[in-house]
Amino acid sequence: MVVIVELSIIPLGEGPSVGKFLAHTVRALEGFGVKYEVTPMSTVYEAEDVEGAFDVARAAHEAIFFGTEGRVKRIITTVKIDDRRDVEKTMEDKVRSVMEAVEAEEQN
Amino acid sequence: MVVIVELSIIPLGEGPSVGKFLAHTVRALEGFGVKYEVTPMSTVYEAEDVEGAFDVARAAHEAIFFGTEGRVKRIITTVKIDDRRDVEKTMEDKVRSVMEAVEAEEQN
Amino acid sequence: MVVIVELSIIPLGEGPSVGKFLAHTVRALEGFGVKYEVTPMSTVYEAEDVEGAFDVARAAHEAIFFGTEGRVKRIITTVKIDDRRDVEKTMEDKVRSVMEAVEAEEQN
Amino acid sequence: MVVIVELSIIPLGEGPSVGKFLAHTVRALEGFGVKYEVTPMSTVYEAEDVEGAFDVARAAHEAIFFGTEGRVKRIITTVKIDDRRDVEKTMEDKVRSVMEAVEAEEQN
Repeated sequence: MVVIVELSIIPLGEGPSVGKFLAHTVRALEGFGVKYEVTPMSTVYEAEDVEGAFDVARAAHEAIFFGTEGRVKRIITTVKIDDRRDVEKTMEDKVRSVMEAVEAEEQN
Repeated sequence: MVVIVELSIIPLGEGPSVGKFLAHTVRALEGFGVKYEVTPMSTVYEAEDVEGAFDVARAAHEAIFFGTEGRVKRIITTVKIDDRRDVEKTMEDKVRSVMEAVEAEEQN
Repeated sequence: MVVIVELSIIPLGEGPSVGKFLAHTVRALEGFGVKYEVTPMSTVYEAEDVEGAFDVARAAHEAIFFGTEGRVKRIITTVKIDDRRDVEKTMEDKVRSVMEAVEAEEQN
Repeated sequence: MVVIVELSIIPLGEGPSVGKFLAHTVRALEGFGVKYEVTPMSTVYEAEDVEGAFDVARAAHEAIFFGTEGRVKRIITTVKIDDRRDVEKTMEDKVRSVMEAVEAEEQN
């Protein structure tokens, strides 16, 4: 089983630049050894199941409070889970199926 | 401590009406005894901490797979957590602080 | 036709409290005369169509930059649109259909 | 000026596989000539301003209703806009700033 997860973490009140905070979340993901991809708007990763998906999200969220030693007072975290149980689809499978459909359309 | 959570669960592939599926998630929330509110686009609830927030979300998500006896094959669930650690704000506090600011603006 | 819209506007870098900024967005909604509801995590409103939905969202987003006279430098705005074209469902209809399904479940 | 946009379009009720529908949205993006990237959970693109960001999102949303000739009856579309006005950041800049912060952390 695999679930695909999109994670967006927004620390409030510490200036408009948040890249340095998000580094803590990426390092948390690396600590779990999950396959992940940083996109321009979020971080996408694979988990074995919903429980694992939320465990990683929670660690990534806490990593910012911890890594900034309490300087960040408020975080808004959004976790989107795509849980499909008829067939297994990896992160790459999902992108490929969209792009193949685009190509098929373009040949019509 | 209190964290505010917005939960949106979208079951795919079982027709455009999903209210009957979402009933399973509401009943899961009631099972946990959390304070919740059904809005036109999602369900908002309070949890004691991030772990509790995700435990409830996971139960609500699984409740649809379970409650439909496997008929639903894919669910996209979005959990947004507002975790504020400088002051404690309930669901009511958050709405009130926006509405008070609106009133203050209107008196200017 | 009616589309239901959930709007979340997060101004970054101006402290953890954002209620006073969100007042600008609520006043923008009032300026449009749309039916709206402030929830603990977002603002929900009705629009006649997708174009109208985005016009209101854009005005609400700009209202913060404008209302704070450039002090806010970055805003992350999320607009979720529920566009259903088989039957017309208002904000109240959507909440009611979930709650009726909950009651039906509970009587089983 | 550049705003970064994350677009997620979920057609309800037409089976668990939605890649073939999302092809219509990608082709709409190509019609606008915007720079875009298909991620496993959404599509990210750049627009010149908020108005342009929503114009593209609306076209991508309508493209599914149109491309499926009315078969899809309900679509839930989420548009997240990152609008930063102190410095200009492209899609690549945003990923790079996170990854550079990760590297800096790892060298500590």
